[in-house]
Amino acid sequence: MKVKKLWEKNYKLRKEVEEFTIGDDYILDQKLIKYDCLASIAHVKMLGKIGILKNWEVKKIVNELSKIIKLDEKGEFIISKEHEDCHTAIENYLTEKLGNLGKKIHVGRSRNDQILTALRLYYKDELENCKVLIQEFILSIKNFVKKYGKIKIPGYTHSRKAMPSSIKLWGSSFIESMEDNLKEINLAIDLINQSPLGTGAGYGIPIIKIDRIYTKKLLNFKKIQNNPIYVQNSRGKFESNILHVLTQIMLDINKIATDLITFSISELGYFSLPKNICTGSSMMPQKVNPDVLELLRAKYHVLISYEFQVKSLIGNLLSGYNRDVQLTKKPIMDGIEITKESLKIATLIMKNLKVNEENCKKGLSQEIYATEKVYKLVLKEGIPFRDAYKIVSEDMKM
Amino acid sequence: MKVKKLWEKNYKLRKEVEEFTIGDDYILDQKLIKYDCLASIAHVKMLGKIGILKNWEVKKIVNELSKIIKLDEKGEFIISKEHEDCHTAIENYLTEKLGNLGKKIHVGRSRNDQILTALRLYYKDELENCKVLIQEFILSIKNFVKKYGKIKIPGYTHSRKAMPSSIKLWGSSFIESMEDNLKEINLAIDLINQSPLGTGAGYGIPIIKIDRIYTKKLLNFKKIQNNPIYVQNSRGKFESNILHVLTQIMLDINKIATDLITFSISELGYFSLPKNICTGSSMMPQKVNPDVLELLRAKYHVLISYEFQVKSLIGNLLSGYNRDVQLTKKPIMDGIEITKESLKIATLIMKNLKVNEENCKKGLSQEIYATEKVYKLVLKEGIPFRDAYKIVSEDMKM
Amino acid sequence: MKVKKLWEKNYKLRKEVEEFTIGDDYILDQKLIKYDCLASIAHVKMLGKIGILKNWEVKKIVNELSKIIKLDEKGEFIISKEHEDCHTAIENYLTEKLGNLGKKIHVGRSRNDQILTALRLYYKDELENCKVLIQEFILSIKNFVKKYGKIKIPGYTHSRKAMPSSIKLWGSSFIESMEDNLKEINLAIDLINQSPLGTGAGYGIPIIKIDRIYTKKLLNFKKIQNNPIYVQNSRGKFESNILHVLTQIMLDINKIATDLITFSISELGYFSLPKNICTGSSMMPQKVNPDVLELLRAKYHVLISYEFQVKSLIGNLLSGYNRDVQLTKKPIMDGIEITKESLKIATLIMKNLKVNEENCKKGLSQEIYATEKVYKLVLKEGIPFRDAYKIVSEDMKM
Amino acid sequence: MKVKKLWEKNYKLRKEVEEFTIGDDYILDQKLIKYDCLASIAHVKMLGKIGILKNWEVKKIVNELSKIIKLDEKGEFIISKEHEDCHTAIENYLTEKLGNLGKKIHVGRSRNDQILTALRLYYKDELENCKVLIQEFILSIKNFVKKYGKIKIPGYTHSRKAMPSSIKLWGSSFIESMEDNLKEINLAIDLINQSPLGTGAGYGIPIIKIDRIYTKKLLNFKKIQNNPIYVQNSRGKFESNILHVLTQIMLDINKIATDLITFSISELGYFSLPKNICTGSSMMPQKVNPDVLELLRAKYHVLISYEFQVKSLIGNLLSGYNRDVQLTKKPIMDGIEITKESLKIATLIMKNLKVNEENCKKGLSQEIYATEKVYKLVLKEGIPFRDAYKIVSEDMKM
Repeated sequence: MKVKKLWEKNYKLRKEVEEFTIGDDYILDQKLIKYDCLASIAHVKMLGKIGILKNWEVKKIVNELSKIIKLDEKGEFIISKEHEDCHTAIENYLTEKLGNLGKKIHVGRSRNDQILTALRLYYKDELENCKVLIQEFILSIKNFVKKYGKIKIPGYTHSRKAMPSSIKLWGSSFIESMEDNLKEINLAIDLINQSPLGTGAGYGIPIIKIDRIYTKKLLNFKKIQNNPIYVQNSRGKFESNILHVLTQIMLDINKIATDLITFSISELGYFSLPKNICTGSSMMPQKVNPDVLELLRAKYHVLISYEFQVKSLIGNLLSGYNRDVQLTKKPIMDGIEITKESLKIATLIMKNLKVNEENCKKGLSQEIYATEKVYKLVLKEGIPFRDAYKIVSEDMKM
Repeated sequence: MKVKKLWEKNYKLRKEVEEFTIGDDYILDQKLIKYDCLASIAHVKMLGKIGILKNWEVKKIVNELSKIIKLDEKGEFIISKEHEDCHTAIENYLTEKLGNLGKKIHVGRSRNDQILTALRLYYKDELENCKVLIQEFILSIKNFVKKYGKIKIPGYTHSRKAMPSSIKLWGSSFIESMEDNLKEINLAIDLINQSPLGTGAGYGIPIIKIDRIYTKKLLNFKKIQNNPIYVQNSRGKFESNILHVLTQIMLDINKIATDLITFSISELGYFSLPKNICTGSSMMPQKVNPDVLELLRAKYHVLISYEFQVKSLIGNLLSGYNRDVQLTKKPIMDGIEITKESLKIATLIMKNLKVNEENCKKGLSQEIYATEKVYKLVLKEGIPFRDAYKIVSEDMKM
Repeated sequence: MKVKKLWEKNYKLRKEVEEFTIGDDYILDQKLIKYDCLASIAHVKMLGKIGILKNWEVKKIVNELSKIIKLDEKGEFIISKEHEDCHTAIENYLTEKLGNLGKKIHVGRSRNDQILTALRLYYKDELENCKVLIQEFILSIKNFVKKYGKIKIPGYTHSRKAMPSSIKLWGSSFIESMEDNLKEINLAIDLINQSPLGTGAGYGIPIIKIDRIYTKKLLNFKKIQNNPIYVQNSRGKFESNILHVLTQIMLDINKIATDLITFSISELGYFSLPKNICTGSSMMPQKVNPDVLELLRAKYHVLISYEFQVKSLIGNLLSGYNRDVQLTKKPIMDGIEITKESLKIATLIMKNLKVNEENCKKGLSQEIYATEKVYKLVLKEGIPFRDAYKIVSEDMKM
Repeated sequence: MKVKKLWEKNYKLRKEVEEFTIGDDYILDQKLIKYDCLASIAHVKMLGKIGILKNWEVKKIVNELSKIIKLDEKGEFIISKEHEDCHTAIENYLTEKLGNLGKKIHVGRSRNDQILTALRLYYKDELENCKVLIQEFILSIKNFVKKYGKIKIPGYTHSRKAMPSSIKLWGSSFIESMEDNLKEINLAIDLINQSPLGTGAGYGIPIIKIDRIYTKKLLNFKKIQNNPIYVQNSRGKFESNILHVLTQIMLDINKIATDLITFSISELGYFSLPKNICTGSSMMPQKVNPDVLELLRAKYHVLISYEFQVKSLIGNLLSGYNRDVQLTKKPIMDGIEITKESLKIATLIMKNLKVNEENCKKGLSQEIYATEKVYKLVLKEGIPFRDAYKIVSEDMKM
């Protein structure tokens, strides 16, 4: 069947321009099919409620949309490049199945509020997924700490041995940090938990009285995002916030990876990873390389660049929809995938990480106890801190 | 008096290295004097409580620290370059006034937890200041909307006229957005509202039993940040979060500035600014330029670069303190100042902004009502949306 | 056939880790097959020259590598996920065809210098392609200027009318800017025009005497990159430089798009684009939107985020190869594609852009001549510039 | 004396707006006084040449401008906040000294081309300074290599021991990299070596015939930047390019710092720094910390954020001058200062760096020779590389 764009008129768009403007959208939107159908079901039910559609019409359309969701679950609803995006693909499917009735679904909304609704439903799901993965990561650290926690290791400042630390202290630091990340995720969810549906292209729906509260309820949004201009202006802004939260998660992973890369070099050897998590060199047979850790480390930087991509491109734009924001889709979707994948791999690493007690003991050389000595002088001999510090300092020939 | 660094030993640091490592710290720390004194007072009281200092010692030190706060309020406590930072300046003052007693203050803490405590007290104050400024900005928009809200203006998408909008719709969009920003600020405050004091250099305080709950209470922190390694690792991480929130605020200001720059060009003329807010050209006598708006617009990008600076520099660093993080001080302090200043200027603009009703009317040309026409066909004639869309489209010779 | 990795040993990498470390490499490397074969041909010939391989061995291997190039041209040499990258895919093919002989190709090199060689050959080709596209873009502007150049338009500063300008002045500004970009591309080519082949994993090839000058000649590099550590350290560094140059090109495109979006709004209407380059709205039938321009504008920001991704992730890394740098492949490859595509689209736009002389004339309102009036007073009446400025200023009731 | 702005008219700018728009300009411009005077001298001479000014007028003005340069050299020409920028400060001085004659200097130019001229003269000088500092840095490495070059050290890949390397190999890698940086600086100088003087506010100078070639010669620019719109549009673009080059320099310094921080930890100890280059801890008396290296490492990230700041803020702006670009002044000036300072400190470090031969020897453990063993098998026993690799691999029980 010939594909028709939702905005098509009596002229053909040039092929090069069409391809350029579509970009990766048709691929990215594959992840949004389910959410766009759910939003459309809510919209159609609302059109029924306010009398725009008849009951049997609503039923028919909802029925077809439910079929699409099932096809999608089986990987059988594929958006082609000609479809441009999930909205056109879905509406074309409906029109094919239902004729004129399929065309009625777009009354009372614009692609501008439609895409935002689908995206937010998708974000909510994915952020919940991230929370589960963080919980699993925390659990893997807890188990690691349960097993090895009592082992003492040197604590470092300035990349140099500083004071005695322990596996427990080290591991728990990441648990606490991840728990703070959960707070940030919760706020991110709270911010996007506002229904944009019913705000049209950014200036409301004229003539007909949309029931926004009804669709909000059906879609399980916490509240309505009231102002239609703000609905549009928050695109990119909310994405920035989500990406920021993801960078905070990735920062913790970056640090755990950095620690493990250094603490597992043969010269220190506090930690080791089983070989089946490491890779080798094509030239040097002895090498057992922590590629997986290096990539985890690097992906933090990928994420921050995604955040700044979104933040940079939404600047200096007039209020209301601008096509520029279409390009926020890829960084946020890729950012979510990278974060989920990284959390899984980090969890796998914590489950397989070993502590080499012998090397840890060796690492606890005497200079690491200098501060304790100072405090003993302070506490037992009543020497002022600054003087005790000097005595120990000179004593160690530092 | 000869200045002594807190870590000074039996050798002199090279002058070039000293200057390089100090950098701007002695200037930036000027803002932290008050907070470092407050933290020191809490610390000293705690040392009294656990018996490290005698009551009269506590009194004497607290007395001198209170004097510093007063000197600072009058702008009379100046950190010199030789002092390196506020901590050394304060401790040198104490030693000068109290002799050996002054040296005792540093027992049970490190500059690492000390600076974090001062910074967080400073952040809390400044974020509260931002909240007040946001409230004032919101109020200025509310008053503006009260005055001009009913005036209709064209709503734009893709920088082109789209549908009818109004001053009220436009202004309110920023109010709603700023209200969401307040939520983000509150979380940022919540995250930093954890006392780092008593965690030393990142691995706790050996030998003596510090009472962290007591200092937490005295300093009005919501809770203790438990893990000393996380305390250090969260430096830069919390700053990132604050800077992210500031960029969200600045994004709204960027958008309001972008709107006003465009909507006030002579060809549109919906808005105008009084001349005493605009600047002129050195060559073209007719020019009345919106420099103030252009700078507001540009400062958003300055803020995102600050966030990126912090996020980039804290990557790939080992757990525990690294001197690199000292460089997070300048972007966060400058970022806070820029945001506060921008909020003030944006408020001033809203208070002085005028709407030119005549031009707004002229702007409401007929194509802006095309969507309404479609909906009338849909509603009154029962034509499917997609067909009605085509009819109007052809009717307008689009 | 069972795929073997170049570094595979007597253990199996965990599937999750394998997938994580491979990432998109097998897809990205599809573009490198040709270049890796060319580099391998040069390498094999050199091994023949220095007596490691016999003549008939060289011939056989070169023959198979040439076949791969031909298969690739027809799109028939596909790297599967199991192959991990182009190097393994190619070596597996050779081993399959040639048995033990296929295994000999990897003597005297590492994947570390191998991938760099392929990448640089690819960069050189693509940067030359960019130069051609820039020339075509310049030509399209020249033709546009030839057609419309004499038409006067208002020149803007601070987004406000300033002084008289012309289509010629406007168009030529982009020509000059693009000519400067060509200089930057030439330097970027010059910098990467150094052969990395023969430096192994970053510390040279032990025992056997590689003839680096011979492979350099065969591959048409300008010189040898001498230091093997620098060879590795320049990965990411050279990519940064290329991406920087691409952002300079995209900045010009961003500006031309920004100008056209504004100068073609109905209120100004200096320019117009044919409909078959614009897109419509799914809700508002009257809309003819410059999506293509908005996306061109936005892609500049995508490019700068790619540059910063590379620059951020290569920081704080030890000398020598680190797996982190694998992640530089995607941003540079995507960056090149986006730039080429944008240049093509920008050229298409210049070829189709129209100037509406009537609207331009209307735009030349009298305030635009204020500066001329000042200069007439200065020149003809000998009034000092600052005084003339004041006179005209007051005259215009500014 | 009452200060007058170059663009001042019959109304007063609000104080808050004035302060906001001036920002740091009056401080930053202190570095531009000399260059603005030199540019003004050329401009005035040209006005004499074309008959706008009489010979005695030229002499008088040039005389006063030369005095300003001398005052500035002694640090006695201070721009006050009321002056706003160097241009107003200088013109006010002239008017004070010369009365009406002082007012004539601004004929035939705008602040827009004036500031660009001063900036480019300043950039040229500073980039030449950078080149000298790079040469000195290279020399310091050469001397270091001369002294210690023969000492063997382990070469690392993936932060793990890989193959034998040497001090010479390591040191020389930075020399080669810095030599490539010089090429990039030269291009950056070449790009800005275009005279913008005489292009006015971006649309040329009306009525009078400016002799741009004459001022170009007097100011020693390589050529004229022809198109006045491009002159304005290149602001920010050229700055981006300079900042990019500076980040390339800082990347090398980041890497040398990263290497030294790791290679000098007590567990490896290949390098050591004299104590008078290191700093201590306020709590741990044993610590000798490489703060100076950590700050060098961190400053790379500061620089890339400056580049990003400029690139982000110049996006989405209309052709012609926009006030936004004023904010490019601070990042470029600070970026230049940081780079110069970092080069000096890096040179100081290389001059004082010591190699601990004993530790280097200890570091050369046997696994580092695995690749050599493979190659011996290949060369002497004719075993295919992949098989030899396996033999050695199994032999080492890897």
